[in-house]
Amino acid sequence: MSEAAHSHGYIHEKDDYLKRLRRIEGQARGLQKMVEEEKYCIDILTQVSAMTKALQSVALGLLNEHMDHCVLDAAKAGGPEAAIKLKEASDAIARLVRS
Amino acid sequence: MSEAAHSHGYIHEKDDYLKRLRRIEGQARGLQKMVEEEKYCIDILTQVSAMTKALQSVALGLLNEHMDHCVLDAAKAGGPEAAIKLKEASDAIARLVRS
Amino acid sequence: MSEAAHSHGYIHEKDDYLKRLRRIEGQARGLQKMVEEEKYCIDILTQVSAMTKALQSVALGLLNEHMDHCVLDAAKAGGPEAAIKLKEASDAIARLVRS
Amino acid sequence: MSEAAHSHGYIHEKDDYLKRLRRIEGQARGLQKMVEEEKYCIDILTQVSAMTKALQSVALGLLNEHMDHCVLDAAKAGGPEAAIKLKEASDAIARLVRS
Repeated sequence: MSEAAHSHGYIHEKDDYLKRLRRIEGQARGLQKMVEEEKYCIDILTQVSAMTKALQSVALGLLNEHMDHCVLDAAKAGGPEAAIKLKEASDAIARLVRS
Repeated sequence: MSEAAHSHGYIHEKDDYLKRLRRIEGQARGLQKMVEEEKYCIDILTQVSAMTKALQSVALGLLNEHMDHCVLDAAKAGGPEAAIKLKEASDAIARLVRS
Repeated sequence: MSEAAHSHGYIHEKDDYLKRLRRIEGQARGLQKMVEEEKYCIDILTQVSAMTKALQSVALGLLNEHMDHCVLDAAKAGGPEAAIKLKEASDAIARLVRS
Repeated sequence: MSEAAHSHGYIHEKDDYLKRLRRIEGQARGLQKMVEEEKYCIDILTQVSAMTKALQSVALGLLNEHMDHCVLDAAKAGGPEAAIKLKEASDAIARLVRS
């Protein structure tokens, strides 16, 4: 098993994430079309909120898998790596909570 | 002045919004590439946070222009329209705050 | 009618806001008790999320009343005051969305 | 070392958390005073945003300590406990991100 396959838990659901990100890309294109056609502002904002929620959901999914795999593996292995992984995860969580 | 030009304040900066949304679309494609290439989870999350902030910023910009134009115009005109516009704006704000 | 009564729409529901804020104060005291008694971290976080939601809901309520009264009144009166009120409201919304 | 001392990492900084929560309780009381005295809505909202940020910061601190202690210890010990702890942490993170 490759190093990447080992350390990046999310690849088990790679196709699912790619599908969700393609849908999010489609939402970004849809928003451009709405602005281009001068749609009603409130309707555009509704789409932005939906897109933000979809992005947030992808982020939470990736974070879970990261903790279930990388962080757990590092914790089991022990050593300084575990603390580094936890610090990284904490920082990523703080960015998500604050964004 | 057309009805659209009258009611949709954001069109004054249409090109700016289109540019920002194209960049957001590019970020969505960049995220797919990162997942495709099995990049490190935390780096992907950093990009998701940046993209969420960019989206939020577009939403706040659109909301401001909406309030400066539609809501203000309706308020000046008076009548039930003003209350309807304010209710719509409030609901959009609540969705943004909670997403 | 006093100036305060005129410009601050929320006082129509003053008692309701005071009740909600007293409950939020109680939640802050409850959290101290949980930390004091060394309750389980996850249970404390659940209470923090509930308290954050309660605060957010107070903020959205105050903002709505502010827009329905101050902003609307300023808009009807016309002049530079309307733009100032809208800018203030926009800034407050941005702080809420980003916090 | 007591069980509580073992499993609840945050007690190492118990006094700090208590101090921060007392300040948050004070902010809740300050908000009641502002409403009582019919202060300007936007100033109240500014205080609500500050209080929300303070709460969020407490939550992120508690979460970090929880992961550094409980989750890490469970991961090292292995067995189903690690997965349970991670699931709990993920759920708490999702509540924070969405609140």
